[in-house]
Amino acid sequence: MPSRSETDFIHYIKARYGLNRIGDDCAVLPKDSETDLVITQDLLAEDVDFVLEWTDARHLGHKALAVSLSDIAAMGATPKWALLSIAVPEQLWDSDFLDEFYTGWMSAASPISVELVGGDISRSPGGLFIDSTAAGEVPRGKAVLRSGARPGDSVYVTGPLGAAAGGLELIRRGVRIPDTPDDSAVARLVLKQLRSQHRCDVGAAIRELGCPTSMIDISDGLSTDLLHICAASGVGAVIHSDLIPISEDLGATIANADALLDLALNGGEDFELLFTADEATVPVELAAKFKRIGKITDSAGKIELIENGITIPLRAEGFAHF
Amino acid sequence: MPSRSETDFIHYIKARYGLNRIGDDCAVLPKDSETDLVITQDLLAEDVDFVLEWTDARHLGHKALAVSLSDIAAMGATPKWALLSIAVPEQLWDSDFLDEFYTGWMSAASPISVELVGGDISRSPGGLFIDSTAAGEVPRGKAVLRSGARPGDSVYVTGPLGAAAGGLELIRRGVRIPDTPDDSAVARLVLKQLRSQHRCDVGAAIRELGCPTSMIDISDGLSTDLLHICAASGVGAVIHSDLIPISEDLGATIANADALLDLALNGGEDFELLFTADEATVPVELAAKFKRIGKITDSAGKIELIENGITIPLRAEGFAHF
Repeated sequence: MPSRSETDFIHYIKARYGLNRIGDDCAVLPKDSETDLVITQDLLAEDVDFVLEWTDARHLGHKALAVSLSDIAAMGATPKWALLSIAVPEQLWDSDFLDEFYTGWMSAASPISVELVGGDISRSPGGLFIDSTAAGEVPRGKAVLRSGARPGDSVYVTGPLGAAAGGLELIRRGVRIPDTPDDSAVARLVLKQLRSQHRCDVGAAIRELGCPTSMIDISDGLSTDLLHICAASGVGAVIHSDLIPISEDLGATIANADALLDLALNGGEDFELLFTADEATVPVELAAKFKRIGKITDSAGKIELIENGITIPLRAEGFAHF
Repeated sequence: MPSRSETDFIHYIKARYGLNRIGDDCAVLPKDSETDLVITQDLLAEDVDFVLEWTDARHLGHKALAVSLSDIAAMGATPKWALLSIAVPEQLWDSDFLDEFYTGWMSAASPISVELVGGDISRSPGGLFIDSTAAGEVPRGKAVLRSGARPGDSVYVTGPLGAAAGGLELIRRGVRIPDTPDDSAVARLVLKQLRSQHRCDVGAAIRELGCPTSMIDISDGLSTDLLHICAASGVGAVIHSDLIPISEDLGATIANADALLDLALNGGEDFELLFTADEATVPVELAAKFKRIGKITDSAGKIELIENGITIPLRAEGFAHF
């Protein structure tokens, strides 16, 4: 059997068993007459999604929840509760790792009142594995899907890109979390990678105020996640390289403009939100907070980047497991 | 730091962060004015919870969901939907393993209309890991907890015990899944271990008809799971060895009466239900289907076994990860 990608396999299983709720950032399930439940599950495997020597237990605990909260935000929903499963190698069990990990997890959960309601703990003979489930609520029928983008819509991102990928690059070159407080650009980039943010502070507000037609979180990279929106919506997009917001800390660390653009376009794990909306419906105060980077077109599946007046086709270069 | 058990750590985290929904087979969350949602998450780690050489992908897929469905049944709830995360070693990815695994998973889900709504797939550098989430529904406030057993209640089990542990013992001695259909007692015991059953066929009916005061699924073993009920309810129990139903297939395979009783008392993964009820409230037709094995007492935390007229204290001998 030829090797399939992770995405191919999900498409295959979805089609084979008619799994209609799979394919967005969260599944949407009816809760009551006024509310839908949204739910997501994310697996983090050691040496695939994180490297233990690069991080610490608190940052990893924070990240484990943040990646799922980001999916809740991408639906325009408000997070409510979560479950956490963790398979722990023996040598970590006999340390303060788990205490620190849960401290980190709670540092993501507590400020937004997300309750840990269940999960599982097991011994692991082969590396650390974390599976994070998070659920949220959204008014009935109002969850923002990937599939609603329409030709003519503007494309927005909620914040600067490239920092998490830049942080990863620095870590690969040997930079580590500083032992003492360090507010340098380098330290901030490293933390963006290791701790991960989520934009639950704006996800629901964009849904309420911004009339978004589609939304996704930028986990795999702008190019890949925009392609996900275009594929789900049956549309294309044109984006402008000079409109893509690039992390200031990244700009202060890397001089090469191409390298900067590459990280902002193709680097993953910034966990900003990418959404589309008819520009006329986006209130001025919301538009001012976010960055309009391009337009949705009717060229299905085709994404183009305009750079220095030249139009080039953009491929998805983001992260894929297989 | 002294080594803590898995259960100790869960108690510690629960107390430290005031996690009141943790500690039963499922978390109970309000859904709408008439319904509660129950949800559980179970992690299966290679070489801890299963051995790949002992099983096949279909049985493992079935088991992955069945262990969670069993938790739903134990709440007296009806299963509705599920999520599945799986971390797959490269050599399994490039085979038909995943196809077969999902076929097995669906063979547990389809007959009871459980819908797969999400999950995650990742590459694993260290063994196969499966995390299964299942959710169900129960009338508001009617979920059957572990904490309601009262002195004087009778203790019931829904079916014969020991088969799954007997199957494990046979597998450890070299018995494998037969290549051709085999309806022998040995083959049935092996399948009880590898495929796992769940009692969603009776869980909700016991709640509706049997007025249970507490319920749990027998996953860790009768002795351990009865202790869980007693600990949560602040009661004790006396059970009679000659009333404990022992798998007929096990009886046909093992002659030693002590070994049989040991497997039925302390072997895990039978996934029958253990519940308590005031005998007067249990309808005759329900009582006839299940086995009354003893009584709840007011001796908190103390479980006694009456064997040949002699009363002996019973310790929890079931499975613990650490």
